[in-house]
Amino acid sequence: MPEKIPEKMKAAVLCGPDDLQIKEVDVPSPAPFEVLIKVMACAICGSDPTVIKGNWPNQPPFGGFTPGHEYSGQIVAVGPNVINFKVGDRVAIETHKGCGYCENCKRGKYTICLNYGKNETGHRHYGFTTNGGYAQYVVNHVSTLYKIADNVEFDEAALVTTAACVHFALDNLGGLLGGESVAVLGPGPIGLMAVQLVKALGATKVILTGTRESRLKVGKEVGADVIVDINKEDPIEAVMKATDGMGVDVVIECSGSKKAAEEAFQMPKRGGRISLIGDPHEPVTVNLRKFVLDDLRAAGVRGEGMGDCKRSLALFSAGKIKAKPLITHTFPLEDVNIALKTYMERIDGAIKVVIHPNG
Amino acid sequence: MPEKIPEKMKAAVLCGPDDLQIKEVDVPSPAPFEVLIKVMACAICGSDPTVIKGNWPNQPPFGGFTPGHEYSGQIVAVGPNVINFKVGDRVAIETHKGCGYCENCKRGKYTICLNYGKNETGHRHYGFTTNGGYAQYVVNHVSTLYKIADNVEFDEAALVTTAACVHFALDNLGGLLGGESVAVLGPGPIGLMAVQLVKALGATKVILTGTRESRLKVGKEVGADVIVDINKEDPIEAVMKATDGMGVDVVIECSGSKKAAEEAFQMPKRGGRISLIGDPHEPVTVNLRKFVLDDLRAAGVRGEGMGDCKRSLALFSAGKIKAKPLITHTFPLEDVNIALKTYMERIDGAIKVVIHPNG
Amino acid sequence: MPEKIPEKMKAAVLCGPDDLQIKEVDVPSPAPFEVLIKVMACAICGSDPTVIKGNWPNQPPFGGFTPGHEYSGQIVAVGPNVINFKVGDRVAIETHKGCGYCENCKRGKYTICLNYGKNETGHRHYGFTTNGGYAQYVVNHVSTLYKIADNVEFDEAALVTTAACVHFALDNLGGLLGGESVAVLGPGPIGLMAVQLVKALGATKVILTGTRESRLKVGKEVGADVIVDINKEDPIEAVMKATDGMGVDVVIECSGSKKAAEEAFQMPKRGGRISLIGDPHEPVTVNLRKFVLDDLRAAGVRGEGMGDCKRSLALFSAGKIKAKPLITHTFPLEDVNIALKTYMERIDGAIKVVIHPNG
Amino acid sequence: MPEKIPEKMKAAVLCGPDDLQIKEVDVPSPAPFEVLIKVMACAICGSDPTVIKGNWPNQPPFGGFTPGHEYSGQIVAVGPNVINFKVGDRVAIETHKGCGYCENCKRGKYTICLNYGKNETGHRHYGFTTNGGYAQYVVNHVSTLYKIADNVEFDEAALVTTAACVHFALDNLGGLLGGESVAVLGPGPIGLMAVQLVKALGATKVILTGTRESRLKVGKEVGADVIVDINKEDPIEAVMKATDGMGVDVVIECSGSKKAAEEAFQMPKRGGRISLIGDPHEPVTVNLRKFVLDDLRAAGVRGEGMGDCKRSLALFSAGKIKAKPLITHTFPLEDVNIALKTYMERIDGAIKVVIHPNG
Repeated sequence: MPEKIPEKMKAAVLCGPDDLQIKEVDVPSPAPFEVLIKVMACAICGSDPTVIKGNWPNQPPFGGFTPGHEYSGQIVAVGPNVINFKVGDRVAIETHKGCGYCENCKRGKYTICLNYGKNETGHRHYGFTTNGGYAQYVVNHVSTLYKIADNVEFDEAALVTTAACVHFALDNLGGLLGGESVAVLGPGPIGLMAVQLVKALGATKVILTGTRESRLKVGKEVGADVIVDINKEDPIEAVMKATDGMGVDVVIECSGSKKAAEEAFQMPKRGGRISLIGDPHEPVTVNLRKFVLDDLRAAGVRGEGMGDCKRSLALFSAGKIKAKPLITHTFPLEDVNIALKTYMERIDGAIKVVIHPNG
Repeated sequence: MPEKIPEKMKAAVLCGPDDLQIKEVDVPSPAPFEVLIKVMACAICGSDPTVIKGNWPNQPPFGGFTPGHEYSGQIVAVGPNVINFKVGDRVAIETHKGCGYCENCKRGKYTICLNYGKNETGHRHYGFTTNGGYAQYVVNHVSTLYKIADNVEFDEAALVTTAACVHFALDNLGGLLGGESVAVLGPGPIGLMAVQLVKALGATKVILTGTRESRLKVGKEVGADVIVDINKEDPIEAVMKATDGMGVDVVIECSGSKKAAEEAFQMPKRGGRISLIGDPHEPVTVNLRKFVLDDLRAAGVRGEGMGDCKRSLALFSAGKIKAKPLITHTFPLEDVNIALKTYMERIDGAIKVVIHPNG
Repeated sequence: MPEKIPEKMKAAVLCGPDDLQIKEVDVPSPAPFEVLIKVMACAICGSDPTVIKGNWPNQPPFGGFTPGHEYSGQIVAVGPNVINFKVGDRVAIETHKGCGYCENCKRGKYTICLNYGKNETGHRHYGFTTNGGYAQYVVNHVSTLYKIADNVEFDEAALVTTAACVHFALDNLGGLLGGESVAVLGPGPIGLMAVQLVKALGATKVILTGTRESRLKVGKEVGADVIVDINKEDPIEAVMKATDGMGVDVVIECSGSKKAAEEAFQMPKRGGRISLIGDPHEPVTVNLRKFVLDDLRAAGVRGEGMGDCKRSLALFSAGKIKAKPLITHTFPLEDVNIALKTYMERIDGAIKVVIHPNG
Repeated sequence: MPEKIPEKMKAAVLCGPDDLQIKEVDVPSPAPFEVLIKVMACAICGSDPTVIKGNWPNQPPFGGFTPGHEYSGQIVAVGPNVINFKVGDRVAIETHKGCGYCENCKRGKYTICLNYGKNETGHRHYGFTTNGGYAQYVVNHVSTLYKIADNVEFDEAALVTTAACVHFALDNLGGLLGGESVAVLGPGPIGLMAVQLVKALGATKVILTGTRESRLKVGKEVGADVIVDINKEDPIEAVMKATDGMGVDVVIECSGSKKAAEEAFQMPKRGGRISLIGDPHEPVTVNLRKFVLDDLRAAGVRGEGMGDCKRSLALFSAGKIKAKPLITHTFPLEDVNIALKTYMERIDGAIKVVIHPNG
């Protein structure tokens, strides 16, 4: 018998810059093509602090907005016209839903929808420009739902976009080939997932660079062949050394550091590719000479796209990539501010911190 | 001042197999994200006879269904949530609107939506599985609308999918390169547009094959470098002769003939590509040896996709491709059955026949 | 101290149709850009019987030609201008060397060199149009050499093109994406390698079809998720069942059977891809309707290309794909005819049979 | 009767930094796979001054080296193993010949050959690391030869790499689509050719930016839809204005200016692409935020590749692109230093300057 849905729920409401408060609010109702999800896990992402400061473009006004965009849960109600999902389904979600009809959406590029942030066009960016998962319940459009295999836990599934973002980053580069070498810059959640993903896709030499020994150690455990502490070793030299002086086939910049972004352009072999996932928030100074003379290619990536969450969940279910080594802390919804502090200040070796809104 | 919209209109209603009747019916109202179009031109397509026979998968029951899927007109009313279009806009339409959230739609492949024909999912195939343009008015989702430049007439714009289909066929092959050679099989509307399009995209040698002298002559006029009457000359030999025995870079099969489809596999140079636009309605017998040993590639194409109507209209406006040489006849809506007969029996050299529902 | 190179060696010389004789012949000398290899392992390939019958295009005259094209060994001498290889290097070879300057070679498509079989242009197809590896020594151009990691044995390395051919087949399809589903048709050496390779590249559901229980069992052991005995089960239905009625993302036809080639076109999901590796030596009858309406794509593949042997060897070394489960028999060079009979008649469950020309 | 080849010829020999002298030297002899060309036209390229300063990596020692790499002429002798060319053929050449067997060459990326500058490996970069076309005769490997159609003059053909470089730049971006918008930065020879090429390949809106009115005027004449004098107008704003605030599909940076390279990253629409042809010789400071958040892609290009000279010559012959509007001056070989000065100082509106070594 389906669980009864309450009228009220707890949600973390953004009441002002850096002022996230647990409030009792109405449980939302699913409109056509929408479902109501009971949120079982919502992970904290590197972009959450920006949102919580109130600095995200097109974010809703303070007082009525709940952030959180990496979540999973169980469908407890479905709106009209929902045919592929039913009450009881365990689902992970992706954050972007395009308008569906702009020039980019029609080419499958819904993460860069030209109607970004305009809810009236049908666009949604859950947890950014519309309510998200730091709540007991949330409504999501069917476009953002992915069924979870029985052997994947909610906590893992909440990290699906971490993997899908890297998946899509590789799509934007034209794919990864089996037997290629990859440098992953930055051993944060995305970097640690990138290491696993490129290994699962056939990379045979993966070099992970970073500054924190504890994270590099996790990188080693999840498959990095070479780890480089950039406080002790020059990362460009380390990459060259690990590749007989040739450079790598692919660089994946995950750190968002200015220095790493600059170095990324010097690491590929002639004809190599660079994926920029991290946003270095400040101008970078790049020597483009190598880029031009060596026919390098680069691609940015905003986030998961092309339905890659489905493919990422398949790899979770097959055991080829793992979220658990990245999840260091979990908190109940009430402790969302402690959770955020733990994540942001990397307290106690925090890598990925997950909220459990329903206990 | 906007034109008054009547309550009733004339429409060609499919009342039974091959039984298309002009009826007076209600003018439809646009729902959210939809507009009402006053149809100025609706061209007859090669798939219309199949629909009018009642043989299209998922087509609506007889008695309440209006076919016609190649049309253009003027927006006379907009439904809720329409922000990019307004009353007065001149628009061309494309026939497919995907559900927007299945695996294929999310990759931009809405013409092969996995929810094809299920209107409740949001899918639409105008003139096939929902009402189309053989009527004075029609509603269309914003996803299917493309603004027409001032210098493009309604009749021309009605043929946008003829061009977009070839555009998308090339997309599915990975694109055309400047300076390549192309064999176009079949001098029907699609073939004659293909000749123009590949020329506009940089092909330097285009060979057109067919059986009708009059159509081949049009092909020559619109840019074919070599025309081959296959009643007089073996088309494979003709292609080889025109390419110093190497074969062409690209074959575009537009005829839907079994024989042409079979020959298409023997025409490319080593490493060449084959686009199959025509559906040969019967099994074809192919020698795959060359396909395997010469690393050939082939791609099918259902119809226009990826928003290629926009790109096709840009080429119309720039004068790089032309619809007018293909339009041989126009008829008022009342004469829809004569128009169909003219088209199907190619009476009086008919190539493309256009209906004018509003005079 | 480098080993002394003898003046004479044993080689299997093709003296007439199906008449392979062990002869004493001169050890060849490497020309510029060539090396002399002491052959340690040479595997029998499915195309060898055609060559030994004398039916390969451009093959040398009987009496002076040694076949064999899947081999590995040690460099014992280098010709002028060889700078990247030295005496003592353990190498695997690929069979194709393009002329290097035709239109295809300049695009990296040397397996479909336009100067195929013309030795005077610099083209080589070792074991087909020039001497190969059923001999104690062989000369190879540096273009065909790949260093073997210490942890890869000669027997394994001899199978590198079996893997590289599948690698290249995927390249020709535009790559495999992590989390995709794949049907592999035919559990011969290529099919059994394909199963492993697509798993190593992130496929999460692999369906292997065939007729021999023993080979399907090996398929299961090397990673197939579903095996289908097509004598007991309809393969198209089995594929649909395993994919919730959707069809697979990718079909790889490895059997060369007419029936399998025909069925391959019915197995993909809408928008799926088909790789044709097997050459069905007779015309196949295909219903192209699905191909056209579902935007399917297909690509043939002649053999290993694009330097994919390097990437395949990297996967061998990383333990991600394995050759040993496929190698059922080894023979000394003297027993080459017994080896061929064992392979061709699949005696004693033979899958891959390897010759050891130097004991 | 073939022309008699003299033993001695005139050549511009680089005798020291910026010290180019006309000398009498031996006419070279073609080795296997080489031909001897009587040079009819050799254009000056933007990289020539660097070479003439002596600053190119791996360039030969002063005293025995003749630069010049954009040339055309007639074959007057052929070496051994040349089968596709004969005495009397009119040919254009490309500058790069890869070793043919390194990892990049085997993927068709011979312009970024891993054995660059090592002549003993078979690599050649004519006019850079081996003798070029500022001479009456030159030897070239068959890999670098392209036959010229009868309707293309030697002067035009000498500019083939100017076009092929842009062709290859587009290849590296994944191609241009018909109906796309393009910003070309820099109205030098490459920019003016880029304008023509993208128009020939179906671009419908081309915006050309630069500082020199005379060159912008030529740009207008050869097809630019919008020209922008960046001394009078902000180029980013101008691009936005011309594209309804969306940005262009493709930016091609041809100027080599630091400022232009920086601005190139701000001009594409969401999901757009950037080609970097110009080498900005100094670090550029780029805001990568848009690159990451808008899924932009960029590709560098060293020079013509993939045999694109063939495709470019086909477009010359078809009249789709023209070299003549770019050729402002011609000089005999004796005046090579005046020619260089004219080119470098843009004397008398010089755009492209061509040397005629044989009168």
